[in-house]
Amino acid sequence: MKTKHPLVGELSGEMLGTAILVLFGCGVVAQVITGGFPDSVSSGDHNSIAFGWGLGVTMAVFVAGRISGAHLNPAVTVALAAFRGFDRRKVLPFIGAQMAGALVGALVVRFVYADQIAAVDATHTKATQGIFSTSPGEGVSILTAFSDQIVGTALLVMVIFALTSAVNNPPLANTAPLIIGLLVVAIGMAWGTNAGYAINPARDLGPRLASWITGYHEAMFSANGPELYFWVPIVAPIIGGLIGGALFVFGIERLLPATATQPQEVGVEEAVALPER
Amino acid sequence: MKTKHPLVGELSGEMLGTAILVLFGCGVVAQVITGGFPDSVSSGDHNSIAFGWGLGVTMAVFVAGRISGAHLNPAVTVALAAFRGFDRRKVLPFIGAQMAGALVGALVVRFVYADQIAAVDATHTKATQGIFSTSPGEGVSILTAFSDQIVGTALLVMVIFALTSAVNNPPLANTAPLIIGLLVVAIGMAWGTNAGYAINPARDLGPRLASWITGYHEAMFSANGPELYFWVPIVAPIIGGLIGGALFVFGIERLLPATATQPQEVGVEEAVALPER
Amino acid sequence: MKTKHPLVGELSGEMLGTAILVLFGCGVVAQVITGGFPDSVSSGDHNSIAFGWGLGVTMAVFVAGRISGAHLNPAVTVALAAFRGFDRRKVLPFIGAQMAGALVGALVVRFVYADQIAAVDATHTKATQGIFSTSPGEGVSILTAFSDQIVGTALLVMVIFALTSAVNNPPLANTAPLIIGLLVVAIGMAWGTNAGYAINPARDLGPRLASWITGYHEAMFSANGPELYFWVPIVAPIIGGLIGGALFVFGIERLLPATATQPQEVGVEEAVALPER
Amino acid sequence: MKTKHPLVGELSGEMLGTAILVLFGCGVVAQVITGGFPDSVSSGDHNSIAFGWGLGVTMAVFVAGRISGAHLNPAVTVALAAFRGFDRRKVLPFIGAQMAGALVGALVVRFVYADQIAAVDATHTKATQGIFSTSPGEGVSILTAFSDQIVGTALLVMVIFALTSAVNNPPLANTAPLIIGLLVVAIGMAWGTNAGYAINPARDLGPRLASWITGYHEAMFSANGPELYFWVPIVAPIIGGLIGGALFVFGIERLLPATATQPQEVGVEEAVALPER
Repeated sequence: MKTKHPLVGELSGEMLGTAILVLFGCGVVAQVITGGFPDSVSSGDHNSIAFGWGLGVTMAVFVAGRISGAHLNPAVTVALAAFRGFDRRKVLPFIGAQMAGALVGALVVRFVYADQIAAVDATHTKATQGIFSTSPGEGVSILTAFSDQIVGTALLVMVIFALTSAVNNPPLANTAPLIIGLLVVAIGMAWGTNAGYAINPARDLGPRLASWITGYHEAMFSANGPELYFWVPIVAPIIGGLIGGALFVFGIERLLPATATQPQEVGVEEAVALPER
Repeated sequence: MKTKHPLVGELSGEMLGTAILVLFGCGVVAQVITGGFPDSVSSGDHNSIAFGWGLGVTMAVFVAGRISGAHLNPAVTVALAAFRGFDRRKVLPFIGAQMAGALVGALVVRFVYADQIAAVDATHTKATQGIFSTSPGEGVSILTAFSDQIVGTALLVMVIFALTSAVNNPPLANTAPLIIGLLVVAIGMAWGTNAGYAINPARDLGPRLASWITGYHEAMFSANGPELYFWVPIVAPIIGGLIGGALFVFGIERLLPATATQPQEVGVEEAVALPER
Repeated sequence: MKTKHPLVGELSGEMLGTAILVLFGCGVVAQVITGGFPDSVSSGDHNSIAFGWGLGVTMAVFVAGRISGAHLNPAVTVALAAFRGFDRRKVLPFIGAQMAGALVGALVVRFVYADQIAAVDATHTKATQGIFSTSPGEGVSILTAFSDQIVGTALLVMVIFALTSAVNNPPLANTAPLIIGLLVVAIGMAWGTNAGYAINPARDLGPRLASWITGYHEAMFSANGPELYFWVPIVAPIIGGLIGGALFVFGIERLLPATATQPQEVGVEEAVALPER
Repeated sequence: MKTKHPLVGELSGEMLGTAILVLFGCGVVAQVITGGFPDSVSSGDHNSIAFGWGLGVTMAVFVAGRISGAHLNPAVTVALAAFRGFDRRKVLPFIGAQMAGALVGALVVRFVYADQIAAVDATHTKATQGIFSTSPGEGVSILTAFSDQIVGTALLVMVIFALTSAVNNPPLANTAPLIIGLLVVAIGMAWGTNAGYAINPARDLGPRLASWITGYHEAMFSANGPELYFWVPIVAPIIGGLIGGALFVFGIERLLPATATQPQEVGVEEAVALPER
């Protein structure tokens, strides 16, 4: 039953992985917002959102890491195509699978949290739109949100490049998915309020569409006013990812001395701290 | 003193491991609820519950991992029997040991937290039932709770399969117990309020019985009304676990290219999720 | 400059490690309590206390792990002597070094937080005694506190034995200090409010003495009344540690099949908890 | 395109790494403070600050670990020159690169958070100065702040030395950057309120200058009064780092028995980010 066409597996991995990411990410925002946050913390708080999203990324990368490389994000896919030789013919299929996975994951959240959403926002206004898609914070301009998304995605891709570079010191023992999740935790804590840290066009547009087709008529607009907003978390992350990739490649990787040792020589046996030894 | 009958060890491991899981899990809820939550966070908040349960799972898996595989959950045991060749004759004994361990662990919580429970809920009503067993959130229907438990357990088992699959990229250096614990943290944050994230029939029914035989007369019912509820966190997690297992097996594992390196041969290069390789 | 008498190094390690543990542990409680908790969370909350103590343990174990085995706790030292062949002649010297380290660490906290302590509790009453030593929670009896300390320390030692057993599946790549710290995080979240989770006679008595000699005249008594309390977090953890050690040795270790692979030979297959093996 | 002058790469790594650290660290404080903390926790709380700074350090160390050793802190650079043979001629260039990176990172935070800062503190007073640089807590004397910074930085450098010592038991599989980040989390929780835990002259002075040149006219002074304060988080961390380094070298390293297994045989050098390479 092994497929002869690996692209099928890659797209399945990207779709399932992105669905997992959104099931955790939109799930935690649904739980926190419908639980009465920010007036009450009885079902979680902003730290829950940061850890829920980040650990969801960790789990998604463990599921899809081997089969597709677990991009799970068009900004990552584009940066890998630009700097890491990822096959450009696969860029659009990967993005399509990511979008489809995010859409499906968000529909599951929409369905299972329907009771709780109805209890706090019966007409599906911008009050619970944040479960699905991002918007500028109160008093934050579109320009600020745009630059925030560039910074956040540049940090994301720069560190991902560092964590997966064959000539850098990457995390070993396949702990990279954990570190990537903690990276997303940190971005949520430090770069989360200007624009809701989409830092991923699929994570934002897929759930935005899911909400739009299930009763959220203002899904495409900013929470602050009548401007169309959906394009910001698509365009800015792509730009930010390219900047972040370039910063790592030209600021670190190309400057490493030619004698850098390869990580393959690392052993493991002494690794256990046995007190009695 | 080595036993010749490995099943004795396996059942001891499942019982002790599940008891540890419940000692941490019911313990943290007891501490948070009797400390005055949600009005006060002086003894912890919802994040404590998520981390307490999740890290308790990590510790239980480290204790029982080698001796029994640390299923600690009938939904996991059934999914392993369905998809991973776990001996079906062991399914009922394993579930029995898990139930016994959960019951004993919950009785210890019941005894040691008796002073604090008596101070906030002297007649053992539904107000502190949540220390032991789950119930739908306020305004959440039984159907929603049922579907929530399917989703939560599907995520649990899908990721556990990914973390332990011989052909996927699992965490190495025996870090899987940590990642499994963080998976439960994330489920508690994102899929915790509709139905209290039992995602484990033994974790729910064992403590529910422990509370029922120690004065909680309404233990079998929903907190929202007179319906019997105890069966939901038994049936739905079994279904969810089978769905999650199937999603990983058919969506990822069977689609991996035949040339996929076996983890035995995995060097550092494979351990790092290098998308382009 | 290498010493010929390894005991000197061991005692230096135990003293420095326990001082580090207390510098983090009493430090975080000082920060949280003097910052106005539980009325305000501006300097941390109960989760900070749990993570501060636990991560402090991680750091202390990394510092002292090789030189002394990083017991850092008389309950651990006694359990290792009872079940793991730790040289009984070293038990008292180790405990002395642990006590000395805890005392010195607590004096540093006492000195550096003096301004903030004076601002909230100028006469050094039981209101800030909790920075240094433990006491039963409000309405908790001495008997409950005693049994709570048995449970908490049994969990601590049972899991530590699992994490360092040569025949179990321990964490590799020297990640055990991290897991031990997270174990203490979980104990603080789940077994923290009945009796303040001393689970370590040195951690409790050393800082208690440090506070007593610097103006806390009621340091030896329970916060709930006039009973002497200092002996509970000494006696109960020793008992709990022995119970926890016995539970692991007789419930898991002695039941492992004789064919269990030694961790020295642990390859990837053993590192991953594959349930079906 | 490999450079023949490794110092260029080292300085690029120190600059980029310190910029990342500040982008996360000042970013999280900006998010939390402008979100209304401590009155509201809607955008994070003190735990977010501790985790945001600490995980930011983890990411910065992964980016710069191989190319420069990821000192990212003049107190670390000076201690390595004193005890670990780091080339003294590189001390000033490294510190210059760290300062430059911190300044640039802080300017990005200043720019992207300008909308939100203007909304809560239009005239750039001490109310939002804490986004960029540290100050004594309310009622904390300069002397206390000075001693606090010695303790905090001594803990930082002592544990970093333990985590990177060739003869100690360091974390393997290149998990040291994670542990170092968690060390900073713990310092933020336990040693954060007396003086804001600069524990790093570059992290403090760089952002202080960035705020000063962008409208914060009181940036050089204590929040408590008219005293110049900027020198405290420069001088005290240097002293504290030397004390912490000495404590590890003389309290642990020099006392290790000569028979201790060398980690060189473990293949550890590659796994650990050894600064001097």
